[in-house]
Amino acid sequence: MSEWVLRYDSYEPGQEAVREALCTLGNGYFATRGAGPESRADGVHYPGTYLAGGYNRLVTRVGDRDVENEDLVNFPNWLPLTFRINGGEWFHLDDVDIDEYRAMLDLRQGTFVRRVRFADRDGRTSIVTYRRFVSMADPHVAGLEFTMLPLDWSGRVDVRSTLDADVSNTNVKRYSELANEHLRPPELHAVDDSTVLCTVETSQSRLRVAIAARTDVLGSDAADRVERQIVETDTHIGHDLSVDVQADQPLTVHKIVALTSSRDHASSECGLAARTRVARAPGFDDLLAQHVLAWDRLWRRYRVTIDGSERAAMILNLHIFHMLQTVSPNTVGRDVGVPARGWHGEAYRGHVFWDELFIFPLLNRGTPEITRTMLHYRFRRLPEARAAAAAAGFKGAMFPWQSGSDGREETQVVHLNPKSGRWVPDGSHLQRHVNIAIAYNVWQHYKVTGDRDYMSHEGTQLLLEIAQFLASLATYNRALDRFEIVGVMGPDEYHEGYPDADEPGLANNAYTNLMAVWVLIHALRALRLLSPDRQSELLDQLGISREELDHWEAVSRKMRVVFHDGVISQFEGYEQLDEFDWEGYREKYDDIQRLDRILEAEGDSTDHYRLSKQADVLMLFYLLSSEQIEELFDRLGYPFDDKTTARTIEYYEARTSHGSTLSRVVHSWVLARSDRERSWQFLIEALESDVADIQGGTTGEGIHLGAMAGTVDLVQRSFTGMVLRDDVLSFDPLLPDEIDRLEMRVHYRQHAGLRVEVTRDRLTISSPAAIAGAPPINVGVRGEIVALESGTTRHFAL
Amino acid sequence: MSEWVLRYDSYEPGQEAVREALCTLGNGYFATRGAGPESRADGVHYPGTYLAGGYNRLVTRVGDRDVENEDLVNFPNWLPLTFRINGGEWFHLDDVDIDEYRAMLDLRQGTFVRRVRFADRDGRTSIVTYRRFVSMADPHVAGLEFTMLPLDWSGRVDVRSTLDADVSNTNVKRYSELANEHLRPPELHAVDDSTVLCTVETSQSRLRVAIAARTDVLGSDAADRVERQIVETDTHIGHDLSVDVQADQPLTVHKIVALTSSRDHASSECGLAARTRVARAPGFDDLLAQHVLAWDRLWRRYRVTIDGSERAAMILNLHIFHMLQTVSPNTVGRDVGVPARGWHGEAYRGHVFWDELFIFPLLNRGTPEITRTMLHYRFRRLPEARAAAAAAGFKGAMFPWQSGSDGREETQVVHLNPKSGRWVPDGSHLQRHVNIAIAYNVWQHYKVTGDRDYMSHEGTQLLLEIAQFLASLATYNRALDRFEIVGVMGPDEYHEGYPDADEPGLANNAYTNLMAVWVLIHALRALRLLSPDRQSELLDQLGISREELDHWEAVSRKMRVVFHDGVISQFEGYEQLDEFDWEGYREKYDDIQRLDRILEAEGDSTDHYRLSKQADVLMLFYLLSSEQIEELFDRLGYPFDDKTTARTIEYYEARTSHGSTLSRVVHSWVLARSDRERSWQFLIEALESDVADIQGGTTGEGIHLGAMAGTVDLVQRSFTGMVLRDDVLSFDPLLPDEIDRLEMRVHYRQHAGLRVEVTRDRLTISSPAAIAGAPPINVGVRGEIVALESGTTRHFAL
Repeated sequence: MSEWVLRYDSYEPGQEAVREALCTLGNGYFATRGAGPESRADGVHYPGTYLAGGYNRLVTRVGDRDVENEDLVNFPNWLPLTFRINGGEWFHLDDVDIDEYRAMLDLRQGTFVRRVRFADRDGRTSIVTYRRFVSMADPHVAGLEFTMLPLDWSGRVDVRSTLDADVSNTNVKRYSELANEHLRPPELHAVDDSTVLCTVETSQSRLRVAIAARTDVLGSDAADRVERQIVETDTHIGHDLSVDVQADQPLTVHKIVALTSSRDHASSECGLAARTRVARAPGFDDLLAQHVLAWDRLWRRYRVTIDGSERAAMILNLHIFHMLQTVSPNTVGRDVGVPARGWHGEAYRGHVFWDELFIFPLLNRGTPEITRTMLHYRFRRLPEARAAAAAAGFKGAMFPWQSGSDGREETQVVHLNPKSGRWVPDGSHLQRHVNIAIAYNVWQHYKVTGDRDYMSHEGTQLLLEIAQFLASLATYNRALDRFEIVGVMGPDEYHEGYPDADEPGLANNAYTNLMAVWVLIHALRALRLLSPDRQSELLDQLGISREELDHWEAVSRKMRVVFHDGVISQFEGYEQLDEFDWEGYREKYDDIQRLDRILEAEGDSTDHYRLSKQADVLMLFYLLSSEQIEELFDRLGYPFDDKTTARTIEYYEARTSHGSTLSRVVHSWVLARSDRERSWQFLIEALESDVADIQGGTTGEGIHLGAMAGTVDLVQRSFTGMVLRDDVLSFDPLLPDEIDRLEMRVHYRQHAGLRVEVTRDRLTISSPAAIAGAPPINVGVRGEIVALESGTTRHFAL
Repeated sequence: MSEWVLRYDSYEPGQEAVREALCTLGNGYFATRGAGPESRADGVHYPGTYLAGGYNRLVTRVGDRDVENEDLVNFPNWLPLTFRINGGEWFHLDDVDIDEYRAMLDLRQGTFVRRVRFADRDGRTSIVTYRRFVSMADPHVAGLEFTMLPLDWSGRVDVRSTLDADVSNTNVKRYSELANEHLRPPELHAVDDSTVLCTVETSQSRLRVAIAARTDVLGSDAADRVERQIVETDTHIGHDLSVDVQADQPLTVHKIVALTSSRDHASSECGLAARTRVARAPGFDDLLAQHVLAWDRLWRRYRVTIDGSERAAMILNLHIFHMLQTVSPNTVGRDVGVPARGWHGEAYRGHVFWDELFIFPLLNRGTPEITRTMLHYRFRRLPEARAAAAAAGFKGAMFPWQSGSDGREETQVVHLNPKSGRWVPDGSHLQRHVNIAIAYNVWQHYKVTGDRDYMSHEGTQLLLEIAQFLASLATYNRALDRFEIVGVMGPDEYHEGYPDADEPGLANNAYTNLMAVWVLIHALRALRLLSPDRQSELLDQLGISREELDHWEAVSRKMRVVFHDGVISQFEGYEQLDEFDWEGYREKYDDIQRLDRILEAEGDSTDHYRLSKQADVLMLFYLLSSEQIEELFDRLGYPFDDKTTARTIEYYEARTSHGSTLSRVVHSWVLARSDRERSWQFLIEALESDVADIQGGTTGEGIHLGAMAGTVDLVQRSFTGMVLRDDVLSFDPLLPDEIDRLEMRVHYRQHAGLRVEVTRDRLTISSPAAIAGAPPINVGVRGEIVALESGTTRHFAL
């Protein structure tokens, strides 16, 4: 095993979906699902090609209601490249004897290679190798190299290279009843001897995507001998290339594609753009070299080195790799968010949830232009969020739990429980805390970049409109002289409402209430960052009065938080729920991560029990330092101390099933200092989430981006104790026993690429050679604060 | 006359085109041509609606060649709103006796109002008023208010409010032979009782635009009585509203429209978005109030007050108004440039030339986010510019003279001389100096904002790629030991090549050569702004070696400049051309601004003479201070002094026809200190360019944005002597005799909204109340430099 390669040494058809997801290649503009064969001519199922932000809405009749679903669209597949020998059957892995099989995702280079040595039915032995990449250097370009080495025969090889528009969304079984035909009939054109073009349009959103493919045989000799023929059906177009091959003489074919869309900038028409791009593209080797160089640049910024566990190191690299394939420098300036399951994840349909909370820290430190783009995605959707707030009777902007193309609430209103086969009403849109995540991220972005211009143009406005919504969500309880938030869901999706209540929604979810206070405080702080002129201008524009600001201040001092048994209650009345029979269910079921489905199938409900799908109260300890939490409680006039923290962590840790991959990241974090062994265990489990498909099937539907980025962030922050506090970048390292050394890069203020190294006894921090005029930054290690000039290195003994 | 109103007191059908252009309303997202009637039901010719960046390409057979032209598209018109009385003929101005007519463009509010008092054929007297706006607050929204006041009759009024998709590009006569049908048949829908939707798609670029219109009768009483009917043809859809009116009781109808496109962000499908937006829009009065508030915010930043000439003050306001209607805060983040003739200018087809050179200074000082967007427009077109450079045998990025949708060269290859009726070959794409303008603007943007992050991400790269192109354009002349640039055109479009040469292009255009040196110097400076890491990364990515940088340095020290008769030669060999018979031609022709057309029609050519269409050499004195020019000549080893400057200005001033509106701006500038009277005269002429249509017909084809912005910039910079020099914002005021006082706002570094006031004896500068932490700026007045803290004011006696 290498820390740079995800490798499979045998062909396992049953593992195809998981491998396809894990071996997805992407560049932040488009993604191609991965491990599956390029070489099937049977039209059964090909991996998909997805455009970042490429959505389409369809309506399905489910029972007695119309269900509208906005899906990430599976666009025409560019991979198909198959072959046959001497006019026989087109190649298929199932039809040959496989002598040797190897599939490798090279994380450093961003390539996927499959190599098969096989004997066909006529006993001929050959080695075929497929190597492909989706260019990080030119977001519109991808390449595929096919090599056929006849070992013991000579003869005629026909290579068929096509574009396949006969695609649909079929990767998620439980969505199979939903409408999924997103594309109108394709427009197919043979452009020239080696180039074809396929243009499609989505049925509702009228988004157009074009793919042009150029297929060439390598070597002037072979190229001269090749016979070419167009192949075309209603949904496929491509070339057949026929050439004579000799034993031991490899035949190499290169397929270069350009993918464009009607949403591209600097474009006339996407079909014209695709043709032009593919015609101008250099050869496979040059494109690959540029691609590898672009990855080099990214790895220089993002690489996290840990010495001690090679598997953990490889998975960390895999996680960074997937995060950068989903949002990359190619994303900057595009109108896309961070989807929960990557840009190939048909589960959740490419929708944008709150995962950016787990993804931003890493990206803020590496490429803040990317997080700026992500925040811009939200800013552009303010009108929709304002309309949603108004429709629900609130002020300000209420961002949706699931956001897609235009920022509308896209959360399903019913979902299918595969265990029971029933469509169950879904209240998860009540997770108003997604707004908290956005506000929190605005502030984090500001803290890392120190960019007041951003705050003046957009950041403060986002904070203000969210604060306005949260303040209007709070109602005054005269009896208690407290503000309350009712009718919401916390992060724990096992609790949609009170047992036997008619309507979903809970009262005084502690996470929501406390973080709402945090948002109000920081919105007011953000406002004070601006010049008085700009403050007035913004308040005028948003129709926020000075009295309203005073009200926010009041709410931020009198929000209600409920406690029971000396712990923070997840929500009001939590302690009145039944305790859950964990042991009984662990005995009864192999896997109890998704207790919601198990209990619903039994006619019961998770609403009845003191159990959590994922971290809810504990999110507070993940996002805020203990000092910050104490300040909040102090401000609210609630007694609070370390013991409450310890009890609260212990209480919920014992009652969480980790039905979300994000949960383990949070639990690892909150235990990092108090229970290092258990913390490490959670981290290991979080690392294995996708690579081992620990949820048993969800990885095939798309990787879990929040958990992926979260684990990397966890390693960076938890092991180094890195915190941004006012104007100090401070550290308090604590390596787990399993790790000997950690090295990473951090972007802080104008010091891009700060190198941080932690060993058992030393922390070293170096600022890269000077950006002329960049002011020094303050670095603190365990309370010792020094100014670090650019171009210098400091060592701290631990 | 007011300084805030452009007013017409009579109806002049012959002036319609000019007024339509001058009274265009826009918001940086879309524009609607202006003064023309909303109230014609004859389908003859309506003003157009244009989308910023809404292009389409068509091919026309002209003689024996295919001419491809990319046009700004005229989209469906939202204005049509007409009426008839008691079932008679639909209203038309030509059919009634006009008692009183008034049309007013209100610059402060951004509204256009037409009020007509008329007697119809049956002797009934009425007053109708149309008031409209294109919202600056919500870029997708526009509104129209129609009021009918029956003075001496009561009866039935039918109001017809429609959307008209029967449009095409017909505003430029000399383009009439070119293909101009840009739209496919429209999709028309009646959405509900008061709302209709029209969606169109362009034929080639497949751009989709949707307009939804909601028409309501004001007042609950009238609304109850109204009868509604859908009217629909192949190209129109709308409503007929029938209602009984009483004498002296006004009937008011409001038409609110939402315009969306497939290029919008945060959108699913543009038709859906238009419907949603128009349904959510509040009433006319609320929309108008928000619109006026948005203009207030802009005027607070952009207003230039001059005391002394009310007409000049009004025209300055008109110019600022049009600039902000073309590029506004609504432009930020969109993929558009600054077109030469506004977004309604069918002349030049909405293409982007070098005008940003004249527009940037003003926008940099007011809203640098807008110039950032403009630079981003160029950055995104680097791939096309690189391909163009490579195709022409050069390195780096060669931006086109005329840029449209995808950054391709869109300059016409033949153009029609309306005087001769001949199609003449056009070599104007050889104006490589557009690249200089882009590079210059990058640096100016950096100087104003001080934003190193921008330089690191994009700015330096733009400078480097342009520098690479210019360096590769320079060839070495061994005999002279000098570098030369041959085969180009300077800004003066009267000189495409040498007399009787086979190929167009000139050698050693002084403006191009000297500014190329300036670009090379500043590209190297920009590179040094970055950290060594980022420098290496960028050079690697662009494939620029350290040797190449040394070569740039060498070129920047040995570029050739040619002189004759003690003046800088416009190009090599200029002095060998014939002198032109200015007096003879002035006698022969009323207007000799366009000598190119006159001479071509006579079988002669401007190439033969020492004459200029516009400032060419003199652009140097416009862009660079005398110190900077002296430094350049010193670096190149050419003797140069003030006398050469004076002689050069005098020489070219005597030989310029000012066939471009930009020319007078430059001439006013270069004479500002040496000949104040003549300078003022040029400024006045430049101010009158559009408002008086001094080119006799070109204003109707679209306003001249460069000249508009240029005059405002001229007033700001020339009268105050404002210069950004290193880290000092310095002034050296000199008011013309005609002006008593000047006041304006300037954005400099973090001090947004610096107020500068100049009177005969005092300059006052105030920084707005503190942005916490904004460092003080250095302000210099005639050599006295002081630090200005935010929130403070300084006075300087003059």
